[in-house]
Amino acid sequence: MTESNNERITTTTIITKTAKIDHPINELIARRWSARAFSTKPVEKSKLLSILEAARWAPSSRNEQPWRYIVFTNENPEKLKKAQSVLKDINEYAKRAPILICAIARKTYSDNKNYNRLHFHDLGAANENMFLEAFNQGLIMHEMGGFGSIQYT
Amino acid sequence: MTESNNERITTTTIITKTAKIDHPINELIARRWSARAFSTKPVEKSKLLSILEAARWAPSSRNEQPWRYIVFTNENPEKLKKAQSVLKDINEYAKRAPILICAIARKTYSDNKNYNRLHFHDLGAANENMFLEAFNQGLIMHEMGGFGSIQYT
Repeated sequence: MTESNNERITTTTIITKTAKIDHPINELIARRWSARAFSTKPVEKSKLLSILEAARWAPSSRNEQPWRYIVFTNENPEKLKKAQSVLKDINEYAKRAPILICAIARKTYSDNKNYNRLHFHDLGAANENMFLEAFNQGLIMHEMGGFGSIQYT
Repeated sequence: MTESNNERITTTTIITKTAKIDHPINELIARRWSARAFSTKPVEKSKLLSILEAARWAPSSRNEQPWRYIVFTNENPEKLKKAQSVLKDINEYAKRAPILICAIARKTYSDNKNYNRLHFHDLGAANENMFLEAFNQGLIMHEMGGFGSIQYT
């Protein structure tokens, strides 16, 4: 690929798509979709912070807020590269993204250490808030389950 | 409790509350909270349909959309009452709500019947869409894990 081609790809056109809804819903929810075509342009830190802020305000069982995020950006290219390296081939497209976020959930309640059977459910809620906020910030996010979780050591 | 007291309680004042955010986020996400004080006033069917519609547009692994909902309303008071009867004491407040929705997730992928390890995560995302849409419709929703899942047979 030539340098100029590469530059053309990095323009930040975002394809919009609205859900074909049967009943009216909030625009934010209707407009979110899981695009795969990423610009490599860095994301402003303020936008990233807003996205993470949105996750904080999801509901959770006993307000445990079991979600944790590891954020990989170009601030540390080496770690970003390492994170990209564990993506499965099917998620090759995500190697272009300027940010990778690894979402994790704490399995036990902080106070009594009992198993929190809702931890993964609540992580899903927080993640959805992030996806919606990313759209609100004019960005796109795409979730992936396909990565080698043992590879990254 | 006297009849008049009861009527006073059923007025539909909704207490608004906005998250004390550190970074700007969409108002819909900032304003959602898990109120416990429910009016018994029936909810318009169009609003209920919009809430369920919002769930449909959550992202999910392989677009499986594993979420399923059983909706209990005053259209069938007997079934609503039966659903209320399985709530744990701690969730007594929810017996006032005019709608109870039981959220379930399919554990396997429809096509190959393999285990979908993300089913509960994806249910959480769909549920969050519902909560947000409920706020968008001027309603409140509160999620509860505390109910006897074996009791309802």
